[in-house]
Amino acid sequence: MTEPLPDVTFPQGFRAAAMAAGIKPSGKPDLSCVVSERDCAWAFAGTRSTTAAACVTRNRELYASGAPLRALVVNAGVANAATGQQGARDNADMADALASVLAVGEAEVITASTGVIGHLLPMDKVLSGVEHLPEELEGAALPFATAIMTTDTRSKLAHVTLSNGARIVGTAKGSGMIHPDMATMFAFAFTDAQVDQGALRGAFPAIVARTFNAVTVDGDTSTNDMTAVLANGAAGETDLTEFLTALEGVMRDLARQIAADGEGATRLLTVRVTGAASEAEALGAARTCCVSPLLKSAVHGADPNWGRVIMAVGRSGAGVKVEAMKVSVQGVPVFAGGPLNYDAAAVSQSMKTDEVIFDVDLGVGSARGEAWGCDLSAEYVSINADYTT
Amino acid sequence: MTEPLPDVTFPQGFRAAAMAAGIKPSGKPDLSCVVSERDCAWAFAGTRSTTAAACVTRNRELYASGAPLRALVVNAGVANAATGQQGARDNADMADALASVLAVGEAEVITASTGVIGHLLPMDKVLSGVEHLPEELEGAALPFATAIMTTDTRSKLAHVTLSNGARIVGTAKGSGMIHPDMATMFAFAFTDAQVDQGALRGAFPAIVARTFNAVTVDGDTSTNDMTAVLANGAAGETDLTEFLTALEGVMRDLARQIAADGEGATRLLTVRVTGAASEAEALGAARTCCVSPLLKSAVHGADPNWGRVIMAVGRSGAGVKVEAMKVSVQGVPVFAGGPLNYDAAAVSQSMKTDEVIFDVDLGVGSARGEAWGCDLSAEYVSINADYTT
Repeated sequence: MTEPLPDVTFPQGFRAAAMAAGIKPSGKPDLSCVVSERDCAWAFAGTRSTTAAACVTRNRELYASGAPLRALVVNAGVANAATGQQGARDNADMADALASVLAVGEAEVITASTGVIGHLLPMDKVLSGVEHLPEELEGAALPFATAIMTTDTRSKLAHVTLSNGARIVGTAKGSGMIHPDMATMFAFAFTDAQVDQGALRGAFPAIVARTFNAVTVDGDTSTNDMTAVLANGAAGETDLTEFLTALEGVMRDLARQIAADGEGATRLLTVRVTGAASEAEALGAARTCCVSPLLKSAVHGADPNWGRVIMAVGRSGAGVKVEAMKVSVQGVPVFAGGPLNYDAAAVSQSMKTDEVIFDVDLGVGSARGEAWGCDLSAEYVSINADYTT
Repeated sequence: MTEPLPDVTFPQGFRAAAMAAGIKPSGKPDLSCVVSERDCAWAFAGTRSTTAAACVTRNRELYASGAPLRALVVNAGVANAATGQQGARDNADMADALASVLAVGEAEVITASTGVIGHLLPMDKVLSGVEHLPEELEGAALPFATAIMTTDTRSKLAHVTLSNGARIVGTAKGSGMIHPDMATMFAFAFTDAQVDQGALRGAFPAIVARTFNAVTVDGDTSTNDMTAVLANGAAGETDLTEFLTALEGVMRDLARQIAADGEGATRLLTVRVTGAASEAEALGAARTCCVSPLLKSAVHGADPNWGRVIMAVGRSGAGVKVEAMKVSVQGVPVFAGGPLNYDAAAVSQSMKTDEVIFDVDLGVGSARGEAWGCDLSAEYVSINADYTT
């Protein structure tokens, strides 16, 4: 996955287009689509928020139908959430417009919106933009990955090639990483592998739990968060196990990229939990550590304050045996049933790097889980203190 | 409750003492006790953390026995959490030492520790301090309220007098207010009202849910969080309903004081939820708003970003009907089933004050709930980025 980003192309049969339609006040690219020339098997997971946006609600309905997909249209700048019936109509109109230009069914197009909540889409700009989008279709992935960004400081791509030549290309966006109620996160994966939709959908929730949700924490919880994988089968039959393992690798790579690009972040925070009673408890404990403002602040200050790990694990509700619990910071054991003597200055020095890793053994079982976050900086506050006004 | 703080005394039959025992490196007061000359009926609630500290575990055992209390001993500076068997022994020794000097049973003394997690108590200092504490017993409440502080910037007291002359005096500490895994919070109330212990214990959980837990969010979740009320009956029979209402008022006052003194806080954040399906959902929605770093950052910047309220409510899982939902900021309606036109500059100006209030109607029922938090400032990060090293 070291190929220079500008050269990454979508898998065969997929093309994408991006443009500046004027939705973002900045004039940056804000409207984009990915189109498949063949029907796609697909899997999807959307936010569990009770105030989910129109795009999530509509996609979920299409998902339930089980019918194949042909395209995805995304706008950035306006989330079209909490916009009532008008918002639902606008969202459907955005999909219909692309379907019409592509001459596919409107139910073959899913949508995704991200940006400020509570504003209606500027439909004149959206519709005239969508009308011209397909003229720009090309194989390159970077323009799409860039057009879906909001407060992200860099585009997020990950890709892999399977043994039969099939490829998986993933893109993601999301930067407000401090908490589940963050700015919207998307993760999309496109593949020319041929996979059975039932098998894909059966495996997808567990993959999402270990990747996308391991940065969102507490499940999918913004109004617009979503992740989807589209498989058009152009590369022919693909070993399912190999495919799913590779898909998880791409999703995991994207999840880490999102965490590392958290608003105001200077370091990636990785928490690896072992010795848990179940994978769910391991993931829950790891996520609770990654979302803790106290631990995140400590990581920012390169402070090996492992007491905050103990506290966050306790808060997560995961079963622990404190007397058998172990904690390491950057590989240095600091707690084993009780405080250990260690060189705090040296550990602090080792934390002044791009990634800080806490290993935590709960001492009760054999399940494991990993989650990612970022440090909390003063910059986070200044980014978010004045976003709309 | 406007009496100058230095003049507040404990209810009759209670006296307190505080001293600097050398537990805090700063040399500030860090060891204190409250003693009742009569047996106290009591109620208690401790953290639900799975890594609860020794003091919480021991108090819970005493609570289960139902036997009366005579004293509370508190140290600040070291939380004595994640300290294993040695920590449990030290905690019991601290209680035993005070019981011995007071000539009461060791099971009549509860303990509370707050400060850095994972350090053992300096028992030589604690024990020699406890030995001399009772020499300093006096009626004033402020020295005790001050000695239990850690990162608090001010002491927290609230008191009320009932119609029969009985009084309730409450003290609290807690400042790391951004999240449930905050630094430890205590709230203690002392009263000379005579109340039935069974009735008190029956009513206490709901009062805690509406007050103490409405700032801690997600229940009691630090390793050492606790709240307790001690009633020694010296003022004689008291109307139970009047007492419970007054107790809730004192606890609510303390909860707001804790929120307003959040680390780095410049404003109190109050979220009042109505129209919920249940009180639990109303409280959950209000708390989720108060803990949202995005909303807290917006409050810091005086940004009426009500979209973050919609998002936080959605994340809380509370039942909502978005088309019937209403949001007001500082009394100005900004959302009613969809975005409303309002003077954003004027509302922003009105947020530049000590308390910012969001009113949120979920549009599904008639239950209500209120929660308190504070804004998120860059100062929070600097306070917490370098706490132990």
